[in-house]
Amino acid sequence: MADSPDFNSLTCPAAPRDYPNIVIAHGGGGRLSAELVEHLFLPAFRNETLEDLGDSAVLHPPPGRVAFSTDSFVVRPLFFPGGCIGDLAVNGTINDIAMSGAMPLYLSAGFILEEGFPMASLVRIAERMAKAAREAGVQIVAGDTKVVERGHGDGCYINTSGFGVLPEGLRIGPAMAQPGDAVLISGTAGDHGMAILSVREGLEFGSLIESDCAPLHTMARRILDATPHVHVLRDPTRGGVASALNEIAAKSNAGIVIDERNLPVQPAVQAACELLGLDPVYVANEGKLLAIVAPEAADAALAAMKAHPLGGNAAILGEVTSRHPGMVLARTAIGGTRVIPMQTGEQLPRIC
Amino acid sequence: MADSPDFNSLTCPAAPRDYPNIVIAHGGGGRLSAELVEHLFLPAFRNETLEDLGDSAVLHPPPGRVAFSTDSFVVRPLFFPGGCIGDLAVNGTINDIAMSGAMPLYLSAGFILEEGFPMASLVRIAERMAKAAREAGVQIVAGDTKVVERGHGDGCYINTSGFGVLPEGLRIGPAMAQPGDAVLISGTAGDHGMAILSVREGLEFGSLIESDCAPLHTMARRILDATPHVHVLRDPTRGGVASALNEIAAKSNAGIVIDERNLPVQPAVQAACELLGLDPVYVANEGKLLAIVAPEAADAALAAMKAHPLGGNAAILGEVTSRHPGMVLARTAIGGTRVIPMQTGEQLPRIC
Repeated sequence: MADSPDFNSLTCPAAPRDYPNIVIAHGGGGRLSAELVEHLFLPAFRNETLEDLGDSAVLHPPPGRVAFSTDSFVVRPLFFPGGCIGDLAVNGTINDIAMSGAMPLYLSAGFILEEGFPMASLVRIAERMAKAAREAGVQIVAGDTKVVERGHGDGCYINTSGFGVLPEGLRIGPAMAQPGDAVLISGTAGDHGMAILSVREGLEFGSLIESDCAPLHTMARRILDATPHVHVLRDPTRGGVASALNEIAAKSNAGIVIDERNLPVQPAVQAACELLGLDPVYVANEGKLLAIVAPEAADAALAAMKAHPLGGNAAILGEVTSRHPGMVLARTAIGGTRVIPMQTGEQLPRIC
Repeated sequence: MADSPDFNSLTCPAAPRDYPNIVIAHGGGGRLSAELVEHLFLPAFRNETLEDLGDSAVLHPPPGRVAFSTDSFVVRPLFFPGGCIGDLAVNGTINDIAMSGAMPLYLSAGFILEEGFPMASLVRIAERMAKAAREAGVQIVAGDTKVVERGHGDGCYINTSGFGVLPEGLRIGPAMAQPGDAVLISGTAGDHGMAILSVREGLEFGSLIESDCAPLHTMARRILDATPHVHVLRDPTRGGVASALNEIAAKSNAGIVIDERNLPVQPAVQAACELLGLDPVYVANEGKLLAIVAPEAADAALAAMKAHPLGGNAAILGEVTSRHPGMVLARTAIGGTRVIPMQTGEQLPRIC
């Protein structure tokens, strides 16, 4: 929160500047609501659809099946190394859409702001959202702002929803893992969760741990272009790799075995996890994907990941098996096997 | 909040019953999150798309332009005469989509719950959402739940986003009002706002005032079927009829004149407004629409409204004029004229 917001970069005129903090009327649907839209959100997210300001955005997507997704973001703190709630909200929904194999096109942004929230912080969040959307090639075409009284929120919550269009004939999903399939991960595990935790708890782990918050749709596209034998794509966010694999095992009624030694983990993340007694396999990611592909497609998928700017640390993690359906096991570094259950309690609340 | 929730009606098995209140882990992406989805949201919203439980819902909408909208709901109290936050959230986004002329098809539901929120209340809210969606013929196909710590929320906030498909060739919108057009309203003004206010403040006004919360897409369809000369449809929610007309006047660069005596207001709402010094033209509605149509289409549009179950009190409210562009005026009961400005402060916070 060190750098001051650049109102001018938004061509943001006087209006929100007159209000250093959010007031209840900014969510009331009257003049202040309109000013917030006209002087803050419109300049930040600028596109023709949004400027129509109808009750709905009217869009012209290409024909085909639609992938539609929603996610609310309540991350604490709002700003953290490697990102903020704004780019997290944009990339999070982009990634949910991308994991169905669709190319994300349009997003909505719904803000629940707390009375007294600094206008400067909202400007920074909107700027980061706009930048993330621009970089990913998606448009923020619909929005809504509500304001709750002091003490009934936590500064800023954001919902993003969005949709994209699926390529003809593509059939992937969490129920489609098959015995023999290879399980791949596109990079190091646990970066986002440990970045949040380190800043939240004021911990220092030698080197700064940054969130991996990033859009994954171009990597998903490259994998799908590299082989027709992709069965599942999934981004391991809350609950980490462990929860994502458990969901896939349950939906596919298949077992999954990973080799612990194959899970890429940054040394700083590994050290922090050891210090805190956390297991990186359960820690949240916001810029990594799991791919489950037919065994003959594993090398092609791995090469596609590694050729992508975000995939330098991609690895083959394990395989799907017909043994122990619904369960995830890990071969350990010392040669044993342990069960990786679905996370039960809450390791790191409000990670996204 | 008197009647107890019917877990059995949801075929809701043991899981959420083991937790009488929401705990942080219900939003953690692990086992408790999965149980909340499987035992509460899935049985309530049951449809094939939702049951796939992928990162996105995969949908097959008919071809055509898409109307996409988002709205967050923070209404207080959560339950009020005539509805609750659940049906409000479903109908609110249905109505935003319908006002573009589209037939709403699919909704998402994003919950931000506060630790300690009663599970029984969440069940009731989900049941009301499911009922509202079923009655309106839309499907809730995607969802998300986050949980924030006690004191960082207000029980339950809901975002709904959704989309529908627009009829070929239809062009309506808030910028399309033209001088000479007739301005119509589909029923009485101010019911929702005064229902919330009366229960919030513990006021009694002789007879119970109920929210008008209702889906408007079938009425919109009837109006559009009755005449090709519809220019604007808009639901006057936050900020009431006054704010909606001001937005239309500004976007269309036209003036609007309404006759105060033509605004239908229920006697109990009128009495409550007088007691509290409120003007019904500024009070929120959740089941009414404004239609702006070519003058020769006014009678057909009015007849279409009146033939609809929600339109018995429909009325012609006034007209669009080339004088005073961007401004809304009202002819008063005593023969004068007054300006109806955009609402500036906040008359009734957290009305939706």
